[in-house]
Amino acid sequence: MKPIDLHNGRIDMRHGSGGRAMFQLVEELFLKAFDNEWLRQKNDQASFRVKEGKMVMTTDAHVVSPLFFPGGNIGSLAVHGTINDVAMSGGMPLHLSASFIIEEGFPISDLVVVTNSMAAAARDAGIAIVTGDTKVVERGKADGLFITTTGLGMVPEGGDISGNAAKPGDKIIVSGTIGDHGIAIMSMRENFDTGIISDTAALHGLVEKMVEVVPNIHSLRDPTRGGLATTLNEIASQSGVGMKISERSIPVKAGVAAACELLGLDPLYVANEGKLVAICSEPDADILLAVMKSHPLGKDAAILGEVVEDSHAFVQLETAFGGFRMVDWLAGEALPRIC
Amino acid sequence: MKPIDLHNGRIDMRHGSGGRAMFQLVEELFLKAFDNEWLRQKNDQASFRVKEGKMVMTTDAHVVSPLFFPGGNIGSLAVHGTINDVAMSGGMPLHLSASFIIEEGFPISDLVVVTNSMAAAARDAGIAIVTGDTKVVERGKADGLFITTTGLGMVPEGGDISGNAAKPGDKIIVSGTIGDHGIAIMSMRENFDTGIISDTAALHGLVEKMVEVVPNIHSLRDPTRGGLATTLNEIASQSGVGMKISERSIPVKAGVAAACELLGLDPLYVANEGKLVAICSEPDADILLAVMKSHPLGKDAAILGEVVEDSHAFVQLETAFGGFRMVDWLAGEALPRIC
Repeated sequence: MKPIDLHNGRIDMRHGSGGRAMFQLVEELFLKAFDNEWLRQKNDQASFRVKEGKMVMTTDAHVVSPLFFPGGNIGSLAVHGTINDVAMSGGMPLHLSASFIIEEGFPISDLVVVTNSMAAAARDAGIAIVTGDTKVVERGKADGLFITTTGLGMVPEGGDISGNAAKPGDKIIVSGTIGDHGIAIMSMRENFDTGIISDTAALHGLVEKMVEVVPNIHSLRDPTRGGLATTLNEIASQSGVGMKISERSIPVKAGVAAACELLGLDPLYVANEGKLVAICSEPDADILLAVMKSHPLGKDAAILGEVVEDSHAFVQLETAFGGFRMVDWLAGEALPRIC
Repeated sequence: MKPIDLHNGRIDMRHGSGGRAMFQLVEELFLKAFDNEWLRQKNDQASFRVKEGKMVMTTDAHVVSPLFFPGGNIGSLAVHGTINDVAMSGGMPLHLSASFIIEEGFPISDLVVVTNSMAAAARDAGIAIVTGDTKVVERGKADGLFITTTGLGMVPEGGDISGNAAKPGDKIIVSGTIGDHGIAIMSMRENFDTGIISDTAALHGLVEKMVEVVPNIHSLRDPTRGGLATTLNEIASQSGVGMKISERSIPVKAGVAAACELLGLDPLYVANEGKLVAICSEPDADILLAVMKSHPLGKDAAILGEVVEDSHAFVQLETAFGGFRMVDWLAGEALPRIC
């Protein structure tokens, strides 16, 4: 049997048939890139021993368009995104699964790049992609490639971080500049060179340091789709509290701010893929901020404001001019398919 | 805010934005249907306590076309398929995640039916859909609905069922008639009434009974895409053995056989979604067969033949006329998007 042409080949329907061509694709591409003891067994599932404790499970479908963007591609994004959802529980990632839906005609060379990015992202995070699935649909029935990743992790004992645990008086911290990922994607789409690259990154290392120093963080969430504004509204709504943040304190890169002006976007609603929001008690805030700033992925961290009593769960922004305005949930669809 | 129109509404890009419309879809549809303590927390991940032991993880993307077919739909199929991949390790399912990729314009009423089928299938199996994700892509960039499910399960101590454990002398058992699912799908596509309904079913209950009586089953696998022929070839290849099966012993419904004739298909390559192949030592075979036959999902179980020494890992079929022919892997793409 001829090896798959990794340079000039294209995916065809046989690669999703369950038969020999699919087996070959899995062997020559996925198994080689993700190589680990579980995949080598070639079963339809992976089995591994776990210790007693608190486990966390999370899943995300990735439909980002374009598939390749400054700072990453759908592969690294899929691994980072799922690691981050594990990390936002205070958990450390353990294993990932990956399922691919590929459009007939997709260049195998692109699949190689994506797969290698996934493998590198998983390796960097010290975790394995232990099981997967491949489906192929006819030309025109998908958009190149969709990847769903599911992550498992273990939460250290005692941790109970949740979106419903924010309390009046708590401080709200963001780990760095907002809007980088969304602007990187939009500038690709609009063919408009901003020089901004996606912040896509795995945050579990940062979270590990944070939890070490402040085990009692109340809430953690990564402001992806819907941006910082939507994440704050979600937590406010889950916790039944209000929030007051100050516009001046929100870190935004000059290039992102300028691109937002041009594109008519508000950075508060633009997606991030390597940032988190942490909510902790006021006495813990300074030390938590210091720990975050000492980590490369938190160097631009800033305290945005605080949680307040508010039965309406409103998020309010103190503007640079000293007034207040409501920060609502994302209502429209300004940035579709950002992740 | 007006509730979502579950009867006449259609999915639009806002339902995948991460903002208010998505939150509403999740609340009014998924959360209601799948209702459980984990989803109610509205975090991006679910956390739960696990005991020390052997865990199994599996994932499958579902792209079946059409979405609705005799005997089920993409929702029940997605739950059954993933439960079955857990069960084929001898494991009992614990939790599922579900991620949805939806095409803009998809009727919400169809999503309601699919979601309710998923909820019912999970409830019947005694497991919960604990976390999920929703993405929407533009019209023409997907084919209605794709669902990826990931399953977790725990394997009872001592179990070590794997595709690489078949040994010469072992018996090969199938749990019932083959080809039902594939023919149910094909008859919908070809608008050709065969009266055949999909066998889609969760097999963990059957497996539980089997493992109770014969803890030392060597291999278990569900012959989905690629059919019985491909599954036998996979196990033969993984275990480095050959197989000899008898055509007479393979259970095939008359309607499936007739439809295969008409459509030019070989039932050996037609997908199943509620059947399994079990390989066990010869002394265990009769008792295992008896246990299977006593279960509703194994009532048509039959011994197909045996594992033989063969360094080429060939699967051979003794035909009804007494000759032998090779049964190769599925090579083509006769039945795309069957699951």
